[in-house]
Amino acid sequence: MIDSQLGIPQFVAEQLVRMALLEDLGAGDVTTDACVLPEAAGVARAQARTDLVVSGLELAQAAFRLVDPSVQIEVMHQNGERVRAGEDLFVARGRARGLLQAERVALNFLQRACGVATMTRLYVDARAPGSQTRITDTRKTTPGLRAVERAAVRAGGGHNHRNDLSSAVLIKDNHIVAAGGIRPAIERARALAPHTSRIECEVDDLAGLREAIEAGAEIVLLDNMNDETVAEAVFLNQGRVLLEASGGITLERVFALSTLGVYAISVGALTHSVYAADIGLDFDLPASPVDA
Amino acid sequence: MIDSQLGIPQFVAEQLVRMALLEDLGAGDVTTDACVLPEAAGVARAQARTDLVVSGLELAQAAFRLVDPSVQIEVMHQNGERVRAGEDLFVARGRARGLLQAERVALNFLQRACGVATMTRLYVDARAPGSQTRITDTRKTTPGLRAVERAAVRAGGGHNHRNDLSSAVLIKDNHIVAAGGIRPAIERARALAPHTSRIECEVDDLAGLREAIEAGAEIVLLDNMNDETVAEAVFLNQGRVLLEASGGITLERVFALSTLGVYAISVGALTHSVYAADIGLDFDLPASPVDA
Amino acid sequence: MIDSQLGIPQFVAEQLVRMALLEDLGAGDVTTDACVLPEAAGVARAQARTDLVVSGLELAQAAFRLVDPSVQIEVMHQNGERVRAGEDLFVARGRARGLLQAERVALNFLQRACGVATMTRLYVDARAPGSQTRITDTRKTTPGLRAVERAAVRAGGGHNHRNDLSSAVLIKDNHIVAAGGIRPAIERARALAPHTSRIECEVDDLAGLREAIEAGAEIVLLDNMNDETVAEAVFLNQGRVLLEASGGITLERVFALSTLGVYAISVGALTHSVYAADIGLDFDLPASPVDA
Amino acid sequence: MIDSQLGIPQFVAEQLVRMALLEDLGAGDVTTDACVLPEAAGVARAQARTDLVVSGLELAQAAFRLVDPSVQIEVMHQNGERVRAGEDLFVARGRARGLLQAERVALNFLQRACGVATMTRLYVDARAPGSQTRITDTRKTTPGLRAVERAAVRAGGGHNHRNDLSSAVLIKDNHIVAAGGIRPAIERARALAPHTSRIECEVDDLAGLREAIEAGAEIVLLDNMNDETVAEAVFLNQGRVLLEASGGITLERVFALSTLGVYAISVGALTHSVYAADIGLDFDLPASPVDA
Amino acid sequence: MIDSQLGIPQFVAEQLVRMALLEDLGAGDVTTDACVLPEAAGVARAQARTDLVVSGLELAQAAFRLVDPSVQIEVMHQNGERVRAGEDLFVARGRARGLLQAERVALNFLQRACGVATMTRLYVDARAPGSQTRITDTRKTTPGLRAVERAAVRAGGGHNHRNDLSSAVLIKDNHIVAAGGIRPAIERARALAPHTSRIECEVDDLAGLREAIEAGAEIVLLDNMNDETVAEAVFLNQGRVLLEASGGITLERVFALSTLGVYAISVGALTHSVYAADIGLDFDLPASPVDA
Amino acid sequence: MIDSQLGIPQFVAEQLVRMALLEDLGAGDVTTDACVLPEAAGVARAQARTDLVVSGLELAQAAFRLVDPSVQIEVMHQNGERVRAGEDLFVARGRARGLLQAERVALNFLQRACGVATMTRLYVDARAPGSQTRITDTRKTTPGLRAVERAAVRAGGGHNHRNDLSSAVLIKDNHIVAAGGIRPAIERARALAPHTSRIECEVDDLAGLREAIEAGAEIVLLDNMNDETVAEAVFLNQGRVLLEASGGITLERVFALSTLGVYAISVGALTHSVYAADIGLDFDLPASPVDA
Repeated sequence: MIDSQLGIPQFVAEQLVRMALLEDLGAGDVTTDACVLPEAAGVARAQARTDLVVSGLELAQAAFRLVDPSVQIEVMHQNGERVRAGEDLFVARGRARGLLQAERVALNFLQRACGVATMTRLYVDARAPGSQTRITDTRKTTPGLRAVERAAVRAGGGHNHRNDLSSAVLIKDNHIVAAGGIRPAIERARALAPHTSRIECEVDDLAGLREAIEAGAEIVLLDNMNDETVAEAVFLNQGRVLLEASGGITLERVFALSTLGVYAISVGALTHSVYAADIGLDFDLPASPVDA
Repeated sequence: MIDSQLGIPQFVAEQLVRMALLEDLGAGDVTTDACVLPEAAGVARAQARTDLVVSGLELAQAAFRLVDPSVQIEVMHQNGERVRAGEDLFVARGRARGLLQAERVALNFLQRACGVATMTRLYVDARAPGSQTRITDTRKTTPGLRAVERAAVRAGGGHNHRNDLSSAVLIKDNHIVAAGGIRPAIERARALAPHTSRIECEVDDLAGLREAIEAGAEIVLLDNMNDETVAEAVFLNQGRVLLEASGGITLERVFALSTLGVYAISVGALTHSVYAADIGLDFDLPASPVDA
Repeated sequence: MIDSQLGIPQFVAEQLVRMALLEDLGAGDVTTDACVLPEAAGVARAQARTDLVVSGLELAQAAFRLVDPSVQIEVMHQNGERVRAGEDLFVARGRARGLLQAERVALNFLQRACGVATMTRLYVDARAPGSQTRITDTRKTTPGLRAVERAAVRAGGGHNHRNDLSSAVLIKDNHIVAAGGIRPAIERARALAPHTSRIECEVDDLAGLREAIEAGAEIVLLDNMNDETVAEAVFLNQGRVLLEASGGITLERVFALSTLGVYAISVGALTHSVYAADIGLDFDLPASPVDA
Repeated sequence: MIDSQLGIPQFVAEQLVRMALLEDLGAGDVTTDACVLPEAAGVARAQARTDLVVSGLELAQAAFRLVDPSVQIEVMHQNGERVRAGEDLFVARGRARGLLQAERVALNFLQRACGVATMTRLYVDARAPGSQTRITDTRKTTPGLRAVERAAVRAGGGHNHRNDLSSAVLIKDNHIVAAGGIRPAIERARALAPHTSRIECEVDDLAGLREAIEAGAEIVLLDNMNDETVAEAVFLNQGRVLLEASGGITLERVFALSTLGVYAISVGALTHSVYAADIGLDFDLPASPVDA
Repeated sequence: MIDSQLGIPQFVAEQLVRMALLEDLGAGDVTTDACVLPEAAGVARAQARTDLVVSGLELAQAAFRLVDPSVQIEVMHQNGERVRAGEDLFVARGRARGLLQAERVALNFLQRACGVATMTRLYVDARAPGSQTRITDTRKTTPGLRAVERAAVRAGGGHNHRNDLSSAVLIKDNHIVAAGGIRPAIERARALAPHTSRIECEVDDLAGLREAIEAGAEIVLLDNMNDETVAEAVFLNQGRVLLEASGGITLERVFALSTLGVYAISVGALTHSVYAADIGLDFDLPASPVDA
Repeated sequence: MIDSQLGIPQFVAEQLVRMALLEDLGAGDVTTDACVLPEAAGVARAQARTDLVVSGLELAQAAFRLVDPSVQIEVMHQNGERVRAGEDLFVARGRARGLLQAERVALNFLQRACGVATMTRLYVDARAPGSQTRITDTRKTTPGLRAVERAAVRAGGGHNHRNDLSSAVLIKDNHIVAAGGIRPAIERARALAPHTSRIECEVDDLAGLREAIEAGAEIVLLDNMNDETVAEAVFLNQGRVLLEASGGITLERVFALSTLGVYAISVGALTHSVYAADIGLDFDLPASPVDA
């Protein structure tokens, strides 16, 4: 059973995997059907080929199970765990055909999710020791896979930002222009938004920050500011609002930003530019000669 | 109208975009509703912030159109075109709310597709001058977005490999083990597969290549071979089968591999490790003060 | 064009209406096919039969348009407007068959949405004059129609509570028990939840309120308290957190509660026990005798 | 196993519940993840808080099972049974997280279905002793939930009317106008409709009833007639057709109407204005302190 | 606009066609993309190659329109019309690529629907002159295409039987066994079924017919009886119930059965064993040489 | 477990069956509910009533299992086996209601699939003894059921042609016209198509064949040629390309064509004009009298 804090609900995982299986296997697998006897058994071992953080296990498992419900999966490392190159993530045992037919879909999910989690862990670990600054995702996620990638961010030690356009307020530059200024934008948002949502406002400079604080923002997103300006923003803020640094964040800047005391650093690259984790499936298959 | 060779069918694009809009906007956009008057008009300009190759235009357009069918879109650069940083891809004119609400979904598709196309173009352009070697994708695509990413590869000047497990034969190491050798694997595949499919067989070494050629393979995938071994393989092959280099391909190796005369180089990284292209939407919105 | 603040996105409306049309009309309408000639034209007038607040117009329109794209709809009253019994909401003109075939689905959506909006307006208007207390919905919505009903609440002058289990934190009695107390529950939630979400905690008594305030809750839900206790809670709170009254709310209590200064009153009955607004479709159809 | 006469098919229930779970839990449950340890077990007891008739059990069960397939459910009262306030409907045992995450969806279905069943039972029991008059639903059902609500009507002792526009003929006033009269409408319908369908015709007055009987109607819907007119209609009919009273039906009128001998009374309010039955889930959860 | 009596609702047609296009064209059309320039225009002429009855026009049109919304279609013969070999059904004008890409899906629907309609017309025309006996379909339809095939039966001059298991009662041999006899089966069905449904009972012999009539059946299905027994059944019935001949119906028997006075003849072969109508698409395409 | 070479993936089967069950049973089965007690058990025996080749077993099984997961199915003959009239295919044991409710959907899939398999087997067996000529399907499949019908062709001993428009190149007459001739069409296709696809070109006469061979086609489809011309084509070809006979193929011509040495004969009629195999479900049900 997956820890739901580090994964996605099972019925969501199955729906996503079913969609991916249709894409890859919906019309069958002529190679496997030709080369592997129907009842041949096999073992597939998912092995990390680089150091990584695990995420997406529930999707990989669902892939094997939906192709062949009789497959047995033994998990060595759960979502959120750090794994060294060479270690096994899980072992799947069952009919060889099913293992081969589900392989690519299982890996496509797993490698992407582990990629996000591992990248997130890099950013999280780049913070100064003891820092409580959060590393968060953004809405720059892969269409259709937002739940997967948000879970991967959590598995990597990061935090989620708002899930979608309805779940919190984030006033951006265009909203400010349209509303006629920072204050009217924040006031209108406060008047309309669910009381369960904090009001976040994006600003470009310290004047904006000052205005946003005075207008009642609870979070201010410091957009594309360099470290010096962020430092000034923290000083100016005096702890009144939560500060979120965003835009132009690189791994190199995380240490400095985390020492400055921003509450959160949001990083689009965690999900929009994912490097797939290197994971291999090693098979142990019996030969099934024609005469067998 | 999108050139279908460089894009995906419109009914597919709309289905994908509808799914993504549900994910992001299905429950509404409280910020935009609060800050922007319903009838305010606006203009959104999609601008390349780095040099890139265009792909996914049909998806970005569908995002704006599905949120507000009255939006007008003027396209400056079509799928497949190279665009310089600073150039506009398209301009969308319509109600400001719709433009803001569709923005993220439009960009999430567009940046990913342009990212794939631009990366593909890098590999394509890395070939030796005059080389006919193909750069191809693999099945290591984002679950649910295979059609999008294959179109992006074509837009970047690359070629597609087989679409799914049913559309061609690719005999891998595990199939060979299961079938009891290269020859029985190829023969079984030939006997079962549609006659419209060529038979491709993956080999690890020159002995495997020799065996595959003799057994009647039409394409041989040279898996994880270094340039020297690939050169030997080309020499050994004497033009009898198509050779595809795969595994461990980096941009740096493309020049050498293309001079060696392999027919195709397949690169999983084109789609499994995509760097989103940097594209911004610049808005021109009227202020809509409370008293308006 | 629907004001998105008072309605649901068009692509969502169309998806819901398509589902409802399949349910009612998917296998055809034998009565209308028998009695009405294919090309006969007609006019359908949607009339309020009681005073009501409009909501769900976009769904009614989508029903007619999806059955026959050539229908023309003239809207007299927009979502959010109060309409007197006898007034027309809209007039649809087109082929008589399409009007008759879409009628029930259009009304099933419209009457329910107007019912929610009208009930919400009753609660909103029951507040003391000048009160800023919000009337909000809950997650006790009709399965599949949450977006519709939340929009209806807004059209009725109410506010939305959190959209789903992911979009904000609401710690209930069982969470408190599981976490080992109010303080650990709030602290764990604060540590995990997106920083864009406020932390709301449900309490049964004033001791709980005190504890929740001290533990850092930003909103406290006063569960099933009578007016006296709510008054004490307001006094005890001294404006430190937002107070939300919930449980056992009746229309009669709204005046008193709103004078006490609670920030919000959440009312499950707005959506779980909806009285459909009485709306009729009056047709003006030509006779189409057999010999015509 | 649900009695299919008093419930909906399991594959339909699962599809509806999956849709509702996506709406509420698709993006996760941050509160429960924060407060409840992944492996903590719990017990949830569904208790009637008012007298009610059970319906929708299969949906509540599917909600728990789809969130966590390992949950065990013990059912005390089946669909169709009358339950007293304070009695338990079922007990679910399993992981505490799953129980809490499925709670709202389970209750949203269950309370609505029980509400419809209980209201139906009120109408059924309001008939004169020994009366065979049927209480039936209409097509005024919640979009997407028609199957659920029709099953609830059966669970409450009522009968279903036609399922959709294809499954039987019901000639309404507009059809009569369009067809040029009652006789041509009935004759055209008889000529076109499946022979398995009876022909029902709606009339406003006794002249209409006479005309409908003579034209061969098998059922006549007496629309919006008072008790006196219904009595005259029964007398006039002499048992030749089935009479259905509809429009303006209140609980108070059911006794009188049932004594008059109409065959059926159809009541839109059974489904269009549902009062959710009051059902609570009482949890028995272990504390899971941070140090555990 | 399609006559809804002879076709299926447009939103249903579009959903079916979208599904079929995904199956055939979802991943693109490499041949057409290679051979036809994107902006080349063309004309496609759908021509009957044998005599046939038209059905499925709305599906063929939807196929072209969903692939390219700018296509123009001119219809020469509507659903339900008889067309001679060599006549055109419709002409589609638009981009050549779209015409070629939609061709197969359009024809797969059209040929099947015309096949059903044409076969139905054969049975309808095989009746004795002046006979009112209905030719009806059964539930032996192609999974997923029931609405299409039922519309085709109507287009061919036939009638529909019940649409699904909910829309009418048909008591078969196994129901009779389970219920303990014809009478209890009919009585139970009458007690449960919607009053809008007639009660049909299947019988094997004249004793069964007699019993069914006496028990109150309104329709009796004479299962697998030869013409002589059917004649006896008609005589025995004396017009009390509707008789439906079914099972072992061949085209040759229709004349005799229709003279015997059965009300309906139901023929599974109309839909379970369809011979696709021969329809060709003749293209008029401009050459688009490489140098163009 | 189904041999995936002779069937379709289980997750695909379940999706198709779910769709078909919704169509037939989604709104319930009033007859069975009335006549059969909920807990009555039964046995259903699927028996071949003519000689046939089995296909679609996984779909029939899924139908019973989705209606009632507790049903037990014992399979006597697997997909691909030849069965004599009178032999049983499988026996299903479980609740009588579920067996009766799933019956029609199970048979609609099974009879169609067996029909395709049996017809294919006829064509396969009509080849000259020892002939290696393939009998293949086409894209003239039932919309939505392509995977089912292609599996049935394989179960009947046939081979599949390309799956969809993306999975291989087939240049038809219109492509040739558009491209400006056979050579440019083939060259363009070769330049664009995946290297895993062979290039097939359709020709009308021997001049076309010669041109196609010279232009590099790997397969040539001989369209609508009589046996004499096919013989000349084989002679002219000298084994250089694979020859496929298509168009106007009848069972009678298969022997001759197979002796001529064409590589494949493609037959649209295998799937576009299917004669449903005659299969009956014989039930053994207990009586369930009212008093039980």
